[in-house]
Amino acid sequence: MVRKNQSITLDVGALANRKLGKYGLTRAQLKRLAPRVKQIVRRVERERADGGHRYRELPHDRLMRQAVEEFAKALRPRTQNLVVLGIGGSALGAIALHQALNHPQHNLLSRRRRGGPRLFVMDNVDPAHFAGMLDVVKDDLPGTVFNIVTKSGETTACLSQFLVVRDLLARRLGPEEARKRIVVTTDSRSGAMRAIADREGFPSLPVPDGVGGRFSVLSAVGLFPAAMCGIDIKDVLKGAAEMDDLARSTSLQRNPAALFAAVHYLYYKKGLDLSVMMPYSNALSGLADWFRQLWAESLGKARKVSGSKVVNVGPTPIRALGVTDQHSQLQLYREGPNNKLITFLEVSRFEQDVPIPNAYHNQPALACLGGASMSELLNTGKQATEQALLASKRPSMTIRFPSVSPHAVGQFICMLEVATTITAGLFGVNPYDQPGVELGKQITYHLLGREGYERVDETAGRGAR
Amino acid sequence: MVRKNQSITLDVGALANRKLGKYGLTRAQLKRLAPRVKQIVRRVERERADGGHRYRELPHDRLMRQAVEEFAKALRPRTQNLVVLGIGGSALGAIALHQALNHPQHNLLSRRRRGGPRLFVMDNVDPAHFAGMLDVVKDDLPGTVFNIVTKSGETTACLSQFLVVRDLLARRLGPEEARKRIVVTTDSRSGAMRAIADREGFPSLPVPDGVGGRFSVLSAVGLFPAAMCGIDIKDVLKGAAEMDDLARSTSLQRNPAALFAAVHYLYYKKGLDLSVMMPYSNALSGLADWFRQLWAESLGKARKVSGSKVVNVGPTPIRALGVTDQHSQLQLYREGPNNKLITFLEVSRFEQDVPIPNAYHNQPALACLGGASMSELLNTGKQATEQALLASKRPSMTIRFPSVSPHAVGQFICMLEVATTITAGLFGVNPYDQPGVELGKQITYHLLGREGYERVDETAGRGAR
Repeated sequence: MVRKNQSITLDVGALANRKLGKYGLTRAQLKRLAPRVKQIVRRVERERADGGHRYRELPHDRLMRQAVEEFAKALRPRTQNLVVLGIGGSALGAIALHQALNHPQHNLLSRRRRGGPRLFVMDNVDPAHFAGMLDVVKDDLPGTVFNIVTKSGETTACLSQFLVVRDLLARRLGPEEARKRIVVTTDSRSGAMRAIADREGFPSLPVPDGVGGRFSVLSAVGLFPAAMCGIDIKDVLKGAAEMDDLARSTSLQRNPAALFAAVHYLYYKKGLDLSVMMPYSNALSGLADWFRQLWAESLGKARKVSGSKVVNVGPTPIRALGVTDQHSQLQLYREGPNNKLITFLEVSRFEQDVPIPNAYHNQPALACLGGASMSELLNTGKQATEQALLASKRPSMTIRFPSVSPHAVGQFICMLEVATTITAGLFGVNPYDQPGVELGKQITYHLLGREGYERVDETAGRGAR
Repeated sequence: MVRKNQSITLDVGALANRKLGKYGLTRAQLKRLAPRVKQIVRRVERERADGGHRYRELPHDRLMRQAVEEFAKALRPRTQNLVVLGIGGSALGAIALHQALNHPQHNLLSRRRRGGPRLFVMDNVDPAHFAGMLDVVKDDLPGTVFNIVTKSGETTACLSQFLVVRDLLARRLGPEEARKRIVVTTDSRSGAMRAIADREGFPSLPVPDGVGGRFSVLSAVGLFPAAMCGIDIKDVLKGAAEMDDLARSTSLQRNPAALFAAVHYLYYKKGLDLSVMMPYSNALSGLADWFRQLWAESLGKARKVSGSKVVNVGPTPIRALGVTDQHSQLQLYREGPNNKLITFLEVSRFEQDVPIPNAYHNQPALACLGGASMSELLNTGKQATEQALLASKRPSMTIRFPSVSPHAVGQFICMLEVATTITAGLFGVNPYDQPGVELGKQITYHLLGREGYERVDETAGRGAR
């Protein structure tokens, strides 16, 4: 589909297996949907020309990338701890890049081995979680940078964290020094955090116009923490840019984002409305969490069909992990209701493999392991799970990574973002809004006694039923 | 339902809210199911008398607890790193207890502040993940203890990790010293690891007879790592024993495990077959992961109904996190298909709270936050989400923790284990087997060239369709 050994590939071959019976996908079914996909891809390209789908321009934005790189380069040498204060789309991208591309025990390594600061992403207002982070960084506040990330500049969780941190820094280091340790990533023009950053002179990075939180990982939102921790963001963006080019194609054979969208849509229509992403790689599990937000918030929508009638649509994304969840979820996946489409993520080559020594030749359970390596065991587990699912008519497909490189991760991110846009087109919903979240925010403001929220409108959130 | 302020409580009040319409639960519906529940609870008690449901005896097993405590007490002082090698039920309990009851940044604290060793749970055969752990502990192998945990003594993932570690220790420290650093938790009589431990003289702890992996957290499987890291396992067991007593009651009013089971079964029958557990507490999120295995493997079954006909049953458990997932999944939960029953976990009192300072009185988004605390924000988020879900007819209930104490965690574990047994009774399935996992294992052995697995029987796993 895309160049071998250099690019990630989407392999849907297993869906054509005859063992699947009515749970299989035929070439004819895909072919019937192809014209609609083509239409959507064309429409998206037209809308891009008019300034729509702005997230797709991020991989090509050299100036933005350079600004982030320079910013990080200046801060990095004197930063021992980087604390990201953000939630949802302001956190998941940073976590995903970190988990995919940094050492699995990053924060426990020495500064010399790490290269960059330790990273803490505070994506909640849990007091134990937050106080736990402060316990660790408070011994070196002069070496700690707090990156406040909020697209709107109004997110309650993020603002409350900011108030705590600003007060602590000002008390301990004085207002002048405090200011240098707070980096604000927010909208370039609007919102409370923008106003504060501009007035008080906090260093700041913009979230580009027209890019929503869950599509912002390839902006300063995800890239600044990544660059601070030494990730090659140029390679990430290069991979994404390559995929962006592929994803302009109107052909299901050439455009893996379109194929991913089409397959998911067809299975949803067959009643398989759970979408399981199951990486066989711990490094990729953060990307599965990132995808979980992208898919749920973009596609879970109450769609108006006629008059006041609405239809509630949207697959439920589930994150699993191989081989780990073979010992937790596989029983359900094979014998429970046949309502899941599984996407495996498979890594062809691990940079560092672990060979299994030979021993205990008289114990068959151990004798068969010696001489293999952990990556072989991992990928054997994937193959076995795929076959076992097939035997019980459970469909699966595979996204294959040549290796877990910045380039492949960039491709993957762009592929799934575009797939989300196309799937939303097939469902007939807007992938960029989240009206269902509005009421919860209003009730929160009401309970906190915020001015102007004395009354709550329960119909907030268009068409929620 | 249970004693206030000391015990966890299950609050199903929101399910009776009239706003839910047909998605509400009436007293009459519960009453109709009550006799079946009563029958199951009685049957379970009879079977316990005959040696069944052995996991329920664990909280009362003083000798086992003392053995674990003494074992840990002897090893703890000279242990800097504890590495658990286990997967599925051999790992999830240890992770859950650790996350709930230890410091959120446990491994980054100084030894003095931690009290016990750093903890690493290796629940995969991912080479990057495994090599990453070795990178960190290999500088102090004499201070590192590896706890191999496998009920069957035959788990491929676990055995391969053992082979790597045993070889490394023997090469670096010599076979004599290596032996002291490998603690084996396995069946007391059978399996390859039992044979090896007995022959080579590894220190070992038993997994009690008749207790399956996913029901083993309150045995040495979960308790040894917990005790090593300084968790008061006596209090955990005391809480569990109290819940075990409550859970003998045949009354839905008095037995929260039975009520949890009944509510889930009734909603499954209404077509809400996704079971979301959403703690408003990072500390409790490991328990939600632990529950995910318990629920999926115990209830996801192909049930024979007549002749060769089978029905595939089982709710799909999903783990969410508040407030974090308000910014990721709430849109889908409110506007997507109405197929989810949500169980919130709420914590009434956090030991350490974080007050939000007053500032920026001219910015309404910030002004309303000052004077509150993070725990108030967290619980306000929960309340707002509950109400927002209600407004779109999405049902939820709440398990309330007075605080995240060993006692409350013990109660919670026992409550959900018993709830699983009772729900299985309602579905008419065996909660303790996992036939659907068998084929995947056979294919793995086949691919690894294990003796005796030259052919694979695709019908393995009773009734998988």
